[in-house]
Amino acid sequence: MSPKDVSSLGLASRSVHADDGLSAHRAIAPAVHVSTTFAYSSDPDALKRWDNTDPAAPHDSHSYSRYTAPNTTRLEAVLASLLGGPALSYGSGLAAFHALLVHLNPKRIAIGEGYHGAFGVIRLLTRLTGLEAVGLDEIDKLGPGDVIHIETPLNPTGEARDLAFYAAKARAAGAYLTVDATFAPPPLLDPFKWGADAVVHSGTKYLGGHSDLLCGVIAVSPEKAGWYEDLKNDRYLLGGVMGSLEGWLGLRSLRTLSLRVKRQSETATALVQWLEAERLNPGSPAAVLTRVQHASLQPEQMPNGYGPVFAIWLQTKDDARRLPSKLGLFHHATSLGGVESLIEWRALSDDKIDERVLRVSIGVEDLEDLKADLLAGFEALRL
Amino acid sequence: MSPKDVSSLGLASRSVHADDGLSAHRAIAPAVHVSTTFAYSSDPDALKRWDNTDPAAPHDSHSYSRYTAPNTTRLEAVLASLLGGPALSYGSGLAAFHALLVHLNPKRIAIGEGYHGAFGVIRLLTRLTGLEAVGLDEIDKLGPGDVIHIETPLNPTGEARDLAFYAAKARAAGAYLTVDATFAPPPLLDPFKWGADAVVHSGTKYLGGHSDLLCGVIAVSPEKAGWYEDLKNDRYLLGGVMGSLEGWLGLRSLRTLSLRVKRQSETATALVQWLEAERLNPGSPAAVLTRVQHASLQPEQMPNGYGPVFAIWLQTKDDARRLPSKLGLFHHATSLGGVESLIEWRALSDDKIDERVLRVSIGVEDLEDLKADLLAGFEALRL
Amino acid sequence: MSPKDVSSLGLASRSVHADDGLSAHRAIAPAVHVSTTFAYSSDPDALKRWDNTDPAAPHDSHSYSRYTAPNTTRLEAVLASLLGGPALSYGSGLAAFHALLVHLNPKRIAIGEGYHGAFGVIRLLTRLTGLEAVGLDEIDKLGPGDVIHIETPLNPTGEARDLAFYAAKARAAGAYLTVDATFAPPPLLDPFKWGADAVVHSGTKYLGGHSDLLCGVIAVSPEKAGWYEDLKNDRYLLGGVMGSLEGWLGLRSLRTLSLRVKRQSETATALVQWLEAERLNPGSPAAVLTRVQHASLQPEQMPNGYGPVFAIWLQTKDDARRLPSKLGLFHHATSLGGVESLIEWRALSDDKIDERVLRVSIGVEDLEDLKADLLAGFEALRL
Amino acid sequence: MSPKDVSSLGLASRSVHADDGLSAHRAIAPAVHVSTTFAYSSDPDALKRWDNTDPAAPHDSHSYSRYTAPNTTRLEAVLASLLGGPALSYGSGLAAFHALLVHLNPKRIAIGEGYHGAFGVIRLLTRLTGLEAVGLDEIDKLGPGDVIHIETPLNPTGEARDLAFYAAKARAAGAYLTVDATFAPPPLLDPFKWGADAVVHSGTKYLGGHSDLLCGVIAVSPEKAGWYEDLKNDRYLLGGVMGSLEGWLGLRSLRTLSLRVKRQSETATALVQWLEAERLNPGSPAAVLTRVQHASLQPEQMPNGYGPVFAIWLQTKDDARRLPSKLGLFHHATSLGGVESLIEWRALSDDKIDERVLRVSIGVEDLEDLKADLLAGFEALRL
Repeated sequence: MSPKDVSSLGLASRSVHADDGLSAHRAIAPAVHVSTTFAYSSDPDALKRWDNTDPAAPHDSHSYSRYTAPNTTRLEAVLASLLGGPALSYGSGLAAFHALLVHLNPKRIAIGEGYHGAFGVIRLLTRLTGLEAVGLDEIDKLGPGDVIHIETPLNPTGEARDLAFYAAKARAAGAYLTVDATFAPPPLLDPFKWGADAVVHSGTKYLGGHSDLLCGVIAVSPEKAGWYEDLKNDRYLLGGVMGSLEGWLGLRSLRTLSLRVKRQSETATALVQWLEAERLNPGSPAAVLTRVQHASLQPEQMPNGYGPVFAIWLQTKDDARRLPSKLGLFHHATSLGGVESLIEWRALSDDKIDERVLRVSIGVEDLEDLKADLLAGFEALRL
Repeated sequence: MSPKDVSSLGLASRSVHADDGLSAHRAIAPAVHVSTTFAYSSDPDALKRWDNTDPAAPHDSHSYSRYTAPNTTRLEAVLASLLGGPALSYGSGLAAFHALLVHLNPKRIAIGEGYHGAFGVIRLLTRLTGLEAVGLDEIDKLGPGDVIHIETPLNPTGEARDLAFYAAKARAAGAYLTVDATFAPPPLLDPFKWGADAVVHSGTKYLGGHSDLLCGVIAVSPEKAGWYEDLKNDRYLLGGVMGSLEGWLGLRSLRTLSLRVKRQSETATALVQWLEAERLNPGSPAAVLTRVQHASLQPEQMPNGYGPVFAIWLQTKDDARRLPSKLGLFHHATSLGGVESLIEWRALSDDKIDERVLRVSIGVEDLEDLKADLLAGFEALRL
Repeated sequence: MSPKDVSSLGLASRSVHADDGLSAHRAIAPAVHVSTTFAYSSDPDALKRWDNTDPAAPHDSHSYSRYTAPNTTRLEAVLASLLGGPALSYGSGLAAFHALLVHLNPKRIAIGEGYHGAFGVIRLLTRLTGLEAVGLDEIDKLGPGDVIHIETPLNPTGEARDLAFYAAKARAAGAYLTVDATFAPPPLLDPFKWGADAVVHSGTKYLGGHSDLLCGVIAVSPEKAGWYEDLKNDRYLLGGVMGSLEGWLGLRSLRTLSLRVKRQSETATALVQWLEAERLNPGSPAAVLTRVQHASLQPEQMPNGYGPVFAIWLQTKDDARRLPSKLGLFHHATSLGGVESLIEWRALSDDKIDERVLRVSIGVEDLEDLKADLLAGFEALRL
Repeated sequence: MSPKDVSSLGLASRSVHADDGLSAHRAIAPAVHVSTTFAYSSDPDALKRWDNTDPAAPHDSHSYSRYTAPNTTRLEAVLASLLGGPALSYGSGLAAFHALLVHLNPKRIAIGEGYHGAFGVIRLLTRLTGLEAVGLDEIDKLGPGDVIHIETPLNPTGEARDLAFYAAKARAAGAYLTVDATFAPPPLLDPFKWGADAVVHSGTKYLGGHSDLLCGVIAVSPEKAGWYEDLKNDRYLLGGVMGSLEGWLGLRSLRTLSLRVKRQSETATALVQWLEAERLNPGSPAAVLTRVQHASLQPEQMPNGYGPVFAIWLQTKDDARRLPSKLGLFHHATSLGGVESLIEWRALSDDKIDERVLRVSIGVEDLEDLKADLLAGFEALRL
């Protein structure tokens, strides 16, 4: 398929075919390439400085794997097709976010609540460049070249932010809008439709989807396609590329992305609706919940589906601490996005959070099993 | 073995046993761990913020793989034992060098010739922090907190630098001496013995040794052990950790490190001596060489053996361009350190180099086969 | 979860959780274990002949990986839960079929059409033991200990066989009913419900689902659970166990089994209905088809859904040979079951087949894209 | 390099280069191919039954991975070059031995002591075919087509057998000589020089060399090259092929084969000489040994070096049981051939053995460290 033909396909088809033609080998399943270096042409007259293109396989030509490598090249082709803009992969979500800020090198960045790791990256850059972080209520302090960084849906509540609002603010200031859309991967959200200049993903989560690979992604808006080459050159120097197995597994994961994400989104949404109803039922064990937060409970709508993460509040810190140990289908661990449901007493990895909150990430299990497990867990808290 | 017992062992024994006890599993060969997240204790009373230690396996406890993970923890244990100081792994050699400079954040760095990638990292940081690069003849410009960065043996000639000299200069200025010892891994060189504060390796080369993994390493001098925690925290934010397969393969590679490196060093040294003699023999096809450079031809001595990389000069650019195509046992590719011998017409990846120079990296093949192949290649140039 | 609790779960939940508790490590995603050997107890008083159980991890204890290994132990736990009987894994589907026949060692086997490889295994055993193959119309020749082997759905047409009929025949003769259910994995078909004594799968197909692993499976009916230990001991001697990466990837694949298979089944069924209608429409490019075969066009019903493979007949051998080259979303390759749709001009790998037939295996792409691709391909045949 | 050129190289060079040219990709390090199926030609006129050769990569052409696959094809090319005859790989050493007997299908097999697994395979075939096992003192019972199977060096003592003697016996009877040379891989022993018709290896041991892959190998004598195709066709049906990662790791392992094996052989031989001297020294803790057995203590000579496995006898069963727990550099586990030294109280996995015997497999550690560890272990037994 030509890239043009691919772009007319549905999301599931693109997940499977957007990397067709990138390997010269007839293997149907991609090979796990691991080589760090690639032979130059055996024809001395074909040798060109900084160019190791093999005419027999122009799309499968590489020189040194810190620059490009076969697995991640295929992964990035599929990511670009799914995310809607040129895409680059990184060793982790924070490596991607760091690389984006190194490229933009803003004086100020406006940022709200969200993942504590992002704040760590900003602090590191403040040490190096003097970067100043301001709140989302201080956007008027931004000037040209500065950045508004929005995480949506928000960690850990899964609530959505209004991207169009922030895009307008950014444009007005001559600033850029960067979006961390980790919690709403395709097909749930397309930040470029709402004006994002660049989208970052912790591909570790839904894109990888099996809790077995670290991955970061930057996709740039087609209008900012010029950023791509500079980001790629920076990546060659920052050196934080994805591992070879991670690249390959990531590609394998994308083949089932829409199947997984739609199922997880539907199950999470149904579970949230059920929990919200159930907790108001005084006779239910779920009455131990004081609050449930999720985009599906907000007035704003996400027409393609809500993210599969939400937050619940228990009556006491002690209940929040004990609930995970009462569950059978939710592993107690940080992270999210995998096929297996996770729950985290969030205070364990975030020292600024309300100690009664638990973050819940829904996997691909059957809805009724998850309901039964939660009910049994709430019940056990009472004993 | 306790760490104390391990430190009394020979290098080959440490390569095999310095990670004993780090896995609670009885598997003799390490597993390829891939999980990005790890369950918290199932005992609610044992839950502690930012601490996920499993009492049943304290050395095999992890929370999130961007911070620590089983494969790289074992790899780093062996690296620390072999390199002589606390060690951290990174996604590539440049990721390690970048992380070291981010940590030290100097105003000035003194650097001589060497790998072009290191200069790229410095330029990137100049953009962010104003870092100024000066030559090794301008060390008097350095002040407290600045850095002298020495690559030894030097890329691409394999020649050695006098580390003690630069260590004294650094101490006098209150600066730090960082050493890129990629070309002389253990057991060939111990930069800490000569006063280095930190050593970086592109572990992609000899530590990995099979051209199939990207790896960067920082080892800090025991006197600078305090840097370790800060570097580790920075790594958590920079996010450029090694891939999971890379970590595992790296550990597998270290098991044979001294066998490989000693063989490669001996073969390279014998080959250099033979080439230097042969090129002065007018009847030999090797007379096509105008120069051979390698530490073994320098007055300085490396008592534990010379690095396995050297450079040769041909009479013309055209001969240099054509030689690789005439060889059967040297792949024409960039990089070095692998079990397979490589040769590179260096002008292909370095636009500042004399176009008559070829970099040669010696693998583990038999010496006599390499000699015969080179002679046949020189002969073929004449045809 | 205890095994009892797991058995009450839905299929998707079992796919994710039936191996919970089999690893003592807190990693959420399974590690890729590769060790061939495992340490004995460090307590000399705990050493027992042929028993290397670790009290700290009784379900994660192994001695030598040709007997049991961590990855395949977990894989088999999930397979047993999904297939409904104790399960063993093998290096390929034929290795499983061969092992089953070695165990049963029948004098006669009744077999109909189907996969040519199965006939090859029978011929090999005929050479060794004198095993006689008879047709499904010769079941009256069978006696106690003999075997009726049914492949359903059938390769390459995807048509279903009446298992209850053959189960009754087998019981009447004192023979065993073995079923190759590769083309209808869970949740599509449960041969044990219809009287099968053992089920074999080429796990290479839907269980693996990504065309990247060879796997064979035997599951034995709970009534024949006694076969399990003998099969396991035979496997230790036949030595054809699954690879380590295959075992791990197989487990990863099962996490999404029901999502994939349901989607593939629904898409294939819709496509078959559409093709069957379209080919009778004289104006349609699909009129190039003379026949479509699939279980959904048979009177028998498969209430849980039809397999995702079917066969189409073109008017001429030449059209059949040329069609794959006209398609963009169907790779032309043998095999089936993967996320990517495949088509095969079956004459390439089966010399007994009608040369006008193509086998079609439907992946997870979008239905409308597959329709459009087929129509364009049919159209191109006319040009 | 052409195959002819490769055959003139030394063993180390062949380990690195005998698979050159088998991949069309320019990657220096082999890719881990995992695909089970491979696309047919996109040119319909090039389609041929049972032949999927890609003219652009004739040596890298495959159809279905149960027949041939890229990793094992490269592995087998190197094995054939090292072992001196056409070679096939299998899922384990016993899978290879079983396949060899299935191919030869003898009425009788003469076999001495040795690995209990081989006897298990024979018993399994006795069940199927009536194969009769006789002792090495009953060779006169053999007739044409029967088999003499010799294991040398012998498990667990490491003692050598006289292959020329048995080759003459086999020829006289019209029987075949098959040799299990697992304990003396290249460069230590070439059974073809002494008249073997086929050599089997448990490649799990020295060929793999890192205790992380199961592998079996059959190499056939160049005079019996005709067996190769039949064995390959049988393998396609028996289905017990190597895993994909195993094939790739095996190739990676062979790159260092001669380095590892020479070191292990030298260390083991020096250790045996030292133990034999030390145990006769009444003041030494090694006096706890009553016997040491190894080929280096036999009158026969192995001019290329002895195998790295030997056996020691303790005074009591109790001492034998306890010794492993007193050692720091020898893991207590079954198997052998890895970079890490192993010791096994052999009674744990062999119920016919003298309970005072321990099998010792020497890794690549430093000789003096192993001596010190053993002395300390012997000493600790006294406490």
